[in-house]
Amino acid sequence: MKHIAILGSTGSIGRSTLSIVESYHERFSVVSLAAGHNIDAAHQQCLHWRPHVISMATEELAVDLQRRLRKNGLTATEVVWGSEGTVRVATLPEVDFVVSAIVGVAGLEATYAAVQAGKTIGLANKEAMVAAGEILTAAARQKKVLLLPIDSEHNAIHQCMRAGQRSEVRQIWLTASGGPFRTLPIEKFDSITVEEALHHPTWVMGRRITIDSATMMNKGLEIIEACRLFDLPATAIKVTVHPQSTVHSLVEYVDGSLIAQISVTDMRLPILYALSYPERIPSDLRFDMATLSDLQFEPPDLERFPCLRLAYEAGEKGGAHPIALNAADEIAVDAFLKRAIPFMGIPATIEQVLETTPEMHPATVKEVLAADSQAREMAREVLAAREVPHRC
Amino acid sequence: MKHIAILGSTGSIGRSTLSIVESYHERFSVVSLAAGHNIDAAHQQCLHWRPHVISMATEELAVDLQRRLRKNGLTATEVVWGSEGTVRVATLPEVDFVVSAIVGVAGLEATYAAVQAGKTIGLANKEAMVAAGEILTAAARQKKVLLLPIDSEHNAIHQCMRAGQRSEVRQIWLTASGGPFRTLPIEKFDSITVEEALHHPTWVMGRRITIDSATMMNKGLEIIEACRLFDLPATAIKVTVHPQSTVHSLVEYVDGSLIAQISVTDMRLPILYALSYPERIPSDLRFDMATLSDLQFEPPDLERFPCLRLAYEAGEKGGAHPIALNAADEIAVDAFLKRAIPFMGIPATIEQVLETTPEMHPATVKEVLAADSQAREMAREVLAAREVPHRC
Repeated sequence: MKHIAILGSTGSIGRSTLSIVESYHERFSVVSLAAGHNIDAAHQQCLHWRPHVISMATEELAVDLQRRLRKNGLTATEVVWGSEGTVRVATLPEVDFVVSAIVGVAGLEATYAAVQAGKTIGLANKEAMVAAGEILTAAARQKKVLLLPIDSEHNAIHQCMRAGQRSEVRQIWLTASGGPFRTLPIEKFDSITVEEALHHPTWVMGRRITIDSATMMNKGLEIIEACRLFDLPATAIKVTVHPQSTVHSLVEYVDGSLIAQISVTDMRLPILYALSYPERIPSDLRFDMATLSDLQFEPPDLERFPCLRLAYEAGEKGGAHPIALNAADEIAVDAFLKRAIPFMGIPATIEQVLETTPEMHPATVKEVLAADSQAREMAREVLAAREVPHRC
Repeated sequence: MKHIAILGSTGSIGRSTLSIVESYHERFSVVSLAAGHNIDAAHQQCLHWRPHVISMATEELAVDLQRRLRKNGLTATEVVWGSEGTVRVATLPEVDFVVSAIVGVAGLEATYAAVQAGKTIGLANKEAMVAAGEILTAAARQKKVLLLPIDSEHNAIHQCMRAGQRSEVRQIWLTASGGPFRTLPIEKFDSITVEEALHHPTWVMGRRITIDSATMMNKGLEIIEACRLFDLPATAIKVTVHPQSTVHSLVEYVDGSLIAQISVTDMRLPILYALSYPERIPSDLRFDMATLSDLQFEPPDLERFPCLRLAYEAGEKGGAHPIALNAADEIAVDAFLKRAIPFMGIPATIEQVLETTPEMHPATVKEVLAADSQAREMAREVLAAREVPHRC
């Protein structure tokens, strides 16, 4: 029996993880949850899963949840809050496996603490890896802890990497759906609306990741995540636009063989893979070979998707740059969702922030978080100073 | 340095192997060759490679070659002949790796002897695996010898199988180009000419394998080969028609992941993989991702390609049936190439031979060869008795 903590239990990955645990209750059990702000969902999860510990975003929410749980007679669940609470959820002695699925750098401290506590990590929080990849992988190496990617692309790469040694990898091909604007002419990019950007062709995901998919920043962050996870330079991570999202990524070996992973577009599959690794266990998430047809692959257009170029640049510079890339993106996407800037204002904002980002290499999680705050501040300043007319 | 014997050195796989050895002369050296009937090519190979031993098909050819080599002052190469000669080439003490590429069951004895002698085998001779797969794999297990497939499909499967355990494989998808008659209406199958059948859309290969590709018997034999190599039932080996021949095969795991291998259609790649396994070494056989587009996959049509159905049936029955399938096919293809029977006479002949094949399970190579001879005899009788008018 694997005992699981879920950081981000009410989000999309968290809920998929719970669905997998439900299907394989003889193998997996949930012992702790970090739920954030959604108190109704957290309440329901407590009633269903009866975790030892649950953490909420704030003390207020925690008190509210505790009161609700007492009404239900559920006194065994300890309710904690804040980043300390999340760390507690991630480091409980009875936890074997931590699913790190809190979006943004919020989950970073807890993920790092989980690595330090020797837990196996299922990593769905790509921002943690982008901002603190070097620190996390160094700690994981030292503690002999597995970092198993749950992102569908990195999970695919993890599978394909089993067909050879890391030193035998020539490059990695990250597939990208291309998002909703793959074929949109560049002159129409500035008038893209929030509603258009939130409509993703293949995956149903959270709001930030959906916008990141539309700007292809999602792929940009994945380039950096792949560098860190698989210990390769940014130049060895290529992107191929594959609108069908059927091939989840490919690994090209030095001998000329490419190994690709194909499956249904359902996050439960990478979650199941990570939870059961190194085993593979039977699932009904079957891919229908009759649907395998007309697979297309094309190079990405860096002009229409400048976020991709910015990510390569930040990935090559390393240090504070990937942190700033991610932080500025989060702020800029938020501004776009609030209709404060147009779609192409997202990369413009990030680029301005990157231009002023100092050449420094944070060595601790604390320094990462400081660099992150600084970049956010800078992004807000850039946004405040913007004189671009609002068009969406 | 790996010391290599090549069985079938003047054939297409043999020549590709020599080209790989030439490119990687710091890693591989050729110590012995079995060359068959092509004395001019054998002569050239001796001058270039100076093998310790070379075997020709007959004593006459061996004497002729020896005379020529003496003229060239090449006395260090020992010239032998016949099946005994081939066995000697395969079992020389200084040989580490045997490339088994003699088409048909002719290479079987020598391949078996090589396994018994503890040599690593690169297996390009699918008929040996079809006819004597159980015997070869049992001997390989006992001697702890690796049987590395050189067929592009099985080589692809070998690579994809590294991403999990054998027990975690749900099924294998062998890709088939579909051959030149993939889209030909069934009513035109009986008027297919030898020239049309010899024109393969993607691979340049020997004559029998090209016809086998046109009838899809090639894929049928590969189904049985895959069963033996990967220890799976025939029902777990599926065929998908993939006209681009870019994905060389896929392995479907129980969790729902498919792992696929993609590469250029060049036999040097699987040869290099087998020769260097478990390493992968750099090559210039690079796949151009810009060519990865419009990938099609469709189910095979068992009505137009009855050889596929016959292979499944023979594979499930096992014992003498796969032997008879292969033997009858070789005879029938020969008859077709000699314009003695029409294209659809190939499966018809094989089906008749299979109907009279006894339910027996050969336990030794000798018994396999006896069953093979018997099936050939039967195929000749069936052909002699044919009254189908010759139309091509």
